[in-house]
Amino acid sequence: MKIPVRAASHSYDVTIGKGILKEATTALDYLFAKADKIVVLTDENVWHSQKDYFEANFPHAYHLHVMPAGETCKSFENYNTVQTFLLEQKCTRKSLIIAFGGGAVGDLAGFVASTYMRGIPFIQVPTTILAHDSAVGGKTAINHALGKNMIGAFYQPEAVIYDITFLHSLNEKEVRSGMAEVIKHALISDAQWVEELLEGEFVTQLPEETLVNYLAHGIQVKAKIVEQDETEQSVRKFLNLGHTYGHAIEAAAGYGRVAHGEAVMIGLLYTLLLSEQYGKVNHQFTKRFLQFALENGYPFEAVHEFTFEQLTEYLLKDKKVDYGQLQFVLLDTIGHPFVQKVELEKCEQIDQQLRALLEEVQQ
Amino acid sequence: MKIPVRAASHSYDVTIGKGILKEATTALDYLFAKADKIVVLTDENVWHSQKDYFEANFPHAYHLHVMPAGETCKSFENYNTVQTFLLEQKCTRKSLIIAFGGGAVGDLAGFVASTYMRGIPFIQVPTTILAHDSAVGGKTAINHALGKNMIGAFYQPEAVIYDITFLHSLNEKEVRSGMAEVIKHALISDAQWVEELLEGEFVTQLPEETLVNYLAHGIQVKAKIVEQDETEQSVRKFLNLGHTYGHAIEAAAGYGRVAHGEAVMIGLLYTLLLSEQYGKVNHQFTKRFLQFALENGYPFEAVHEFTFEQLTEYLLKDKKVDYGQLQFVLLDTIGHPFVQKVELEKCEQIDQQLRALLEEVQQ
Repeated sequence: MKIPVRAASHSYDVTIGKGILKEATTALDYLFAKADKIVVLTDENVWHSQKDYFEANFPHAYHLHVMPAGETCKSFENYNTVQTFLLEQKCTRKSLIIAFGGGAVGDLAGFVASTYMRGIPFIQVPTTILAHDSAVGGKTAINHALGKNMIGAFYQPEAVIYDITFLHSLNEKEVRSGMAEVIKHALISDAQWVEELLEGEFVTQLPEETLVNYLAHGIQVKAKIVEQDETEQSVRKFLNLGHTYGHAIEAAAGYGRVAHGEAVMIGLLYTLLLSEQYGKVNHQFTKRFLQFALENGYPFEAVHEFTFEQLTEYLLKDKKVDYGQLQFVLLDTIGHPFVQKVELEKCEQIDQQLRALLEEVQQ
Repeated sequence: MKIPVRAASHSYDVTIGKGILKEATTALDYLFAKADKIVVLTDENVWHSQKDYFEANFPHAYHLHVMPAGETCKSFENYNTVQTFLLEQKCTRKSLIIAFGGGAVGDLAGFVASTYMRGIPFIQVPTTILAHDSAVGGKTAINHALGKNMIGAFYQPEAVIYDITFLHSLNEKEVRSGMAEVIKHALISDAQWVEELLEGEFVTQLPEETLVNYLAHGIQVKAKIVEQDETEQSVRKFLNLGHTYGHAIEAAAGYGRVAHGEAVMIGLLYTLLLSEQYGKVNHQFTKRFLQFALENGYPFEAVHEFTFEQLTEYLLKDKKVDYGQLQFVLLDTIGHPFVQKVELEKCEQIDQQLRALLEEVQQ
C-alpha cells in the first residue's frame, strides 16, 4: 500500500506491507540510479536481528555503518563519527543514505543527510512500530546534553519503505510502546477508531492485518497534518498530544528507563484530565482509557517517582513553550484537538488529579 | 539601499549603506517584536573593534556570546558550545539570533540558527567585504576535520543589515581578499563592470561611494542567481567561479595562511586559462587580469609551494565533483559563465600553464 506525503518542501510515498523490501526498493530505481554511492546506517541491535533479511532483499551494493543502539546513536559524538564515515567513503552530494532502524537511527540518519554537504537524499526503512510515527514527516534530530531532540532539522526523506517483516523481532514492551503513538493518532483524528482500539484485542496481540491497517491509518493521519503544516507553525502541534507531560516523565527518569511510548501513554492520560477542564471530554472516558491502558500492561509507576516540582523543570523545556508559557495539545472531543496555554498552577492541579486517579484505580 | 532576495524558501531584504544599523534595525521592528530573546553571536576581534558602535546603535536588549575568531569559530566544538549557550539562556523557537561578524561568524551562526530546535530566525549583520558574499544567499556551514564547509544547510536569514561603517576596521589584506569576490561577481555577470574594475583605482583604495556601489552590485548579481536556484542544482554553481582551484590552494596551505579571497584570485586566473580552452576568453585578457591582480598586491607565491599532485587531493574534495569527475565553472566570454566537466589530465596541463605564466610575468 502506498501513502503519499505531500509536504510543502517535498512529496514522497510511504510504502507499507509485508515482505515488500525488494519490490519497493526496485520501484525506486530512478532514485538509486542517480546515486553515486549508497550508505546504509543502522544500529547493532537492528543489524544483528535483521541482517539476513536485509541482505537477501536489498538489491544494491552499499557501504555499511553500524552504530551503537539506543539514544547513544543520537549523541553529538556519533553525529560527528557518521559525518567522518561519509567523508572517508568520499560520499558526495549524489550519495544516498538508507536509514535502517528504529526512531533513533532515523532521527540521526535524517539529520546527517540534511547537513552533509548541506543536504543529500535519504530513504527511511523503519523497523519498529514507533517509527511509523518518527520516520514520516521529516523531523530529524540529535540530542544535546541539555535536552533531547534539541538540535535538528525539518528534512523530508525521498521515500519511506515500511516492511512489516521487520516488526517480528520486537519484544512486547517495544510493541506496547509503539502502539501508544498509534493510539495518539486515533485520539486526535477519529472517535470511532478510538472505540475500536479500546474494545479490541490487546495491542500486543493484534492480528497482523489489523496491525498493518492501524499503522497505515496512523501514517495517513500524520501525512495529512504534515501536508498542512510541515514546520509546526500550527496544526502539526496536534501530533504532540500527550508529549509535553510524557517527555517530562521520560526526561526525569533518564532516557531509556521509561520507554518513549510508555511515557506518552502517561502523557495522554494527563492530557485527558486537562481536556476535561478545557474541552468536553468526560471523566468516565478518562477512567475507561486508564483501564484500557492498565489492561494492556502500560506502566504508570514512573509518575510516583517524581514530584511535580521535579517535572516542572522538564515541562518548561518543551519546544512548544511560547513566551515562557506552557502550551498543551488538548481534545475538545475525541478526534478534535486544539492548542491551549495553561498556567503552571493549573498543571500542578491536574498532576495531583492524575496521582489521585492512579491511586484510586490501583487500590 | 534595499536589495530584495527572493529565494524559493524565503524572501528578505539586504539593506546596505553607511551608518544604517539603527535605522535598519528599527525598520525590522516586526521581527524583533516577535522575539522572546535576542542573542548576538560575534567573535573576539569583531567585538573588540566594533563594540562601541554596535552598542550605541543596536536598539534592543540582547544576550551576548563572543566566540573565538577565525576558522576556530566554525569548529564542531564551537558549534556545540553555542548550542549549549542557547539552551542555558533558555532560548526557544521564538528567539532571534544576530550573526554579527565576518564570513566565519555568519556561517556558524546561520548553521546554529538552522538547527537549534529545528530552526529559529536569524539576521546577518556582516562586518567585512568578503561577507557581502557569504551573508547573502543562505549557505551556512561548519568545518569538519576532513574538509571545510562539509556540514551545513541552506537556510535563509530574515534580513541582512550591511552597515559599511563596520568596514573601517579592516586592514588592507582583508579589503583585498574581500574584493576578490566582488571581482568574481563582475566576471560572471558584466564585461563592462570588469573593465571598470581593471581600469579603476586600486581595489584597496576605492572611494567609499564606489565601494558601496560595487558591493550592492555584487549582492544583486548573487541575489538574482539565488532566486533562480537556491540549493545549487544549476546556475548557483556559477558563484563558484575560481573556487575549485582556489579552495585547493587554500586547503593545501592550511586554512588561514592564504586568505580566502587571495586564494580565489589565484583560482580566477586558473579559470581564465581553462576558459581560453573551452570558451572564447583570449590570452591577452588573462595576462591583463594577472597584471591587474599583481598591481593590486594579490600574492601568487602559494602556487609554487605545492605540486599539482598535492593539489589534486583537494581538488577531488570539491562539492561539485560529479560521479568522480571534476566540474569547473568557466567563462565563455566575460560575463557568461558555464559549467564544464574537465579531465584531471587537462587540469594538470592548465596548472603547468599557470606556473609558466607566473614565472614569465615575475621575471
